[in-house]
Amino acid sequence: MAGRNVFYAQSGGVTAVINASAAGLFDTIESYPNTFGQIYAGKNGILGALREELIDVSALSQESRTGLVHTPGGAFGSCRYKLKSPSERPEQYARLLEVFKAHDIGYFFYNGGGDSQDTADKVSRFTREQGFPVQCIGIPKTIDNDLPFTDACPGFGSVAKYVATSIREAALDVESMAESSTKVFILEVMGRHAGWIAGAAGLAQADGHVAPQLILFPERVFDPEDFLKAVDAIVARDGFCAIVASEGIKTADGQFLAETGLRDAFGHAQLGGVASTLAQLIKDRLGLKYHYAIADYLQRAARHIASQTDVDQAYALGAYAARLAEGGETAVMPIIKRTSDTPYQWELASVPLSEVANVERTMPDDFIRADGYGITDVARRYFQPLIQGEAVPPFHNGLPSYVRVEYTFAPKRLSAFSI
Amino acid sequence: MAGRNVFYAQSGGVTAVINASAAGLFDTIESYPNTFGQIYAGKNGILGALREELIDVSALSQESRTGLVHTPGGAFGSCRYKLKSPSERPEQYARLLEVFKAHDIGYFFYNGGGDSQDTADKVSRFTREQGFPVQCIGIPKTIDNDLPFTDACPGFGSVAKYVATSIREAALDVESMAESSTKVFILEVMGRHAGWIAGAAGLAQADGHVAPQLILFPERVFDPEDFLKAVDAIVARDGFCAIVASEGIKTADGQFLAETGLRDAFGHAQLGGVASTLAQLIKDRLGLKYHYAIADYLQRAARHIASQTDVDQAYALGAYAARLAEGGETAVMPIIKRTSDTPYQWELASVPLSEVANVERTMPDDFIRADGYGITDVARRYFQPLIQGEAVPPFHNGLPSYVRVEYTFAPKRLSAFSI
Repeated sequence: MAGRNVFYAQSGGVTAVINASAAGLFDTIESYPNTFGQIYAGKNGILGALREELIDVSALSQESRTGLVHTPGGAFGSCRYKLKSPSERPEQYARLLEVFKAHDIGYFFYNGGGDSQDTADKVSRFTREQGFPVQCIGIPKTIDNDLPFTDACPGFGSVAKYVATSIREAALDVESMAESSTKVFILEVMGRHAGWIAGAAGLAQADGHVAPQLILFPERVFDPEDFLKAVDAIVARDGFCAIVASEGIKTADGQFLAETGLRDAFGHAQLGGVASTLAQLIKDRLGLKYHYAIADYLQRAARHIASQTDVDQAYALGAYAARLAEGGETAVMPIIKRTSDTPYQWELASVPLSEVANVERTMPDDFIRADGYGITDVARRYFQPLIQGEAVPPFHNGLPSYVRVEYTFAPKRLSAFSI
Repeated sequence: MAGRNVFYAQSGGVTAVINASAAGLFDTIESYPNTFGQIYAGKNGILGALREELIDVSALSQESRTGLVHTPGGAFGSCRYKLKSPSERPEQYARLLEVFKAHDIGYFFYNGGGDSQDTADKVSRFTREQGFPVQCIGIPKTIDNDLPFTDACPGFGSVAKYVATSIREAALDVESMAESSTKVFILEVMGRHAGWIAGAAGLAQADGHVAPQLILFPERVFDPEDFLKAVDAIVARDGFCAIVASEGIKTADGQFLAETGLRDAFGHAQLGGVASTLAQLIKDRLGLKYHYAIADYLQRAARHIASQTDVDQAYALGAYAARLAEGGETAVMPIIKRTSDTPYQWELASVPLSEVANVERTMPDDFIRADGYGITDVARRYFQPLIQGEAVPPFHNGLPSYVRVEYTFAPKRLSAFSI
């Protein structure tokens, strides 16, 4: 006899490997046909549960199923929507319970960051209190790499590989133009609160490559005068300067640099414009020609240059989540435990969601070089294994062959709910 | 007996495959030891000739030589420096001749765009007139794809593959977030005067992928009202809108949408800021949440996602340039002639530099869809073969293993020259 049904949802900003976690989860669930019944995925995450929009995973084409592991973005749709607490929004929890009951959901897998782990914890407690216990397992995901306990968060290693590759490539370009043209190149990367991504770009500085010569971390106060001095000295030494700047860098007054009121040629405030602000500063004060790139979504969607380690861990965490549920666990999150740096070895473990929820892991202080503009060997030892291996997707007609899943919904059994 | 020596120079904006042309040239030159002597590469292009900074190619390490074919940027340095005519700057041509004589240069290979082909033509004529004939062969290179006669310009196919891959990936990301977050994504790409790069991004719209739904070409007047109406309709239909915008789009009054007022050494306006201008417009008028990326140098340096076709053609054109010189030709440029679309077949030919110089190939009108926001099937047939094949570089420690060439210079025989 098949067991109770499964509900899976993606949450928050998506990554190049979140669908690999879905693949690991689905494959493993199907290997326990006595424990698990139907698998449903929420359309646009938890919104799909509230709206009773349940995608029938068994109806996915074979092409879609095999494509999940190499397709970036959220194949079932994600959302930026955080459930409040049951006391604040009791009707939302009641609705969730109603939908879970209507579709006999016994397992809830929530694939997201810190907020999602908190929600999964609350749902576990709430359903138990209401006499309809649903086993809730969090599956970690975030390019921000800010979840505690796990060695890395799926999605991060691939962003790391993308930004390190990109700055190495762009630096070779600017170095060859520097004599008579562009001397400074700035790559703006994500990381509003922590410099994990910016720091990982420092891996490019190896094997004879001098770039990036400067990294700007949100963990360090941005001092324009000191920065300009550093740029000037590097251009004098190397002929060019390649900079990786976190979008979250702040000045001494605690203001985001991107919100300091600089305007573009048309008088528009440059939103998210760390790179353009830095570029303008360099041009005005040092008179150097610059170029800048803003990677934005390209960095977190770049499945074509994904880290095999990241893909493997994303898949393994999804698979382990299924095994935890099969073993009767609830309110836990699988994690990666590093057991060795070189060679990189890791194993799976799990932690209670209550310990994960809303704890933000910041980058250790000893990851940042004393001058504040680079990474230390300690950081290198941490970052290096995470970008290892090339998980090249299949190509068709010269482009990565990604899937766009066609949705077949489970028939609705309830009336509409207004969110 | 070895023949006269060879001078090779890279010019203008570099590409992901310009060093592959150098590799093809060097390998082929070395296969004619009776025709050619030493190979020198100018440090920073033609500036290296004027300054008598000649890199001894025979002194390159084996690693550097094999690395050329998969390393982006200009391995010997490039420059934005255009020689004027002999009548305008006679001292520059006299110096060039002096250096060529001092190092017994009988062959000059100039790897660049339209301006460089013009210079190579002038040098061929000048040296002949001066009784020290140097065979001058242009090797085409430009991501702008604006050289006439050749089916494609080396560098373009790889940018095309990069932008089409990137917009496909970012579109999957934004589509999964669109329900509750970002609905519009803009990718700003290069292409000052022609929409070749923007157009090639349209290849992503295939195999069930709907993005990019809008492409903005410099060949079409940008009409804000019409554009906003299109964005609005697409978001209503698809839930999201992915846009590829050429940096060169202009409004009805002929102004660049993102004119910054900066100019490069050739007097070209330096552009940037199209994406942020469009984003602001969309937010102000449609109230939609947006993200944007500016690929900048990342697109033309992205050797990790280079087109195998592009790499093959870059190498073949370098090799053919050597064979043209060996056959006694001067003032010519090798080109790619397409003989079939499907399967893609091409052969090598050559054209006189005088016919190439300063002729800009614009994108045919029938490449752009009637509504101005996409590409036609004619365009697809042209673009499709150019992104074919994945020329994945070797990797080391998770990153592409590119070379930074160490320079050994030929001993100087002349006094310094002030440029």
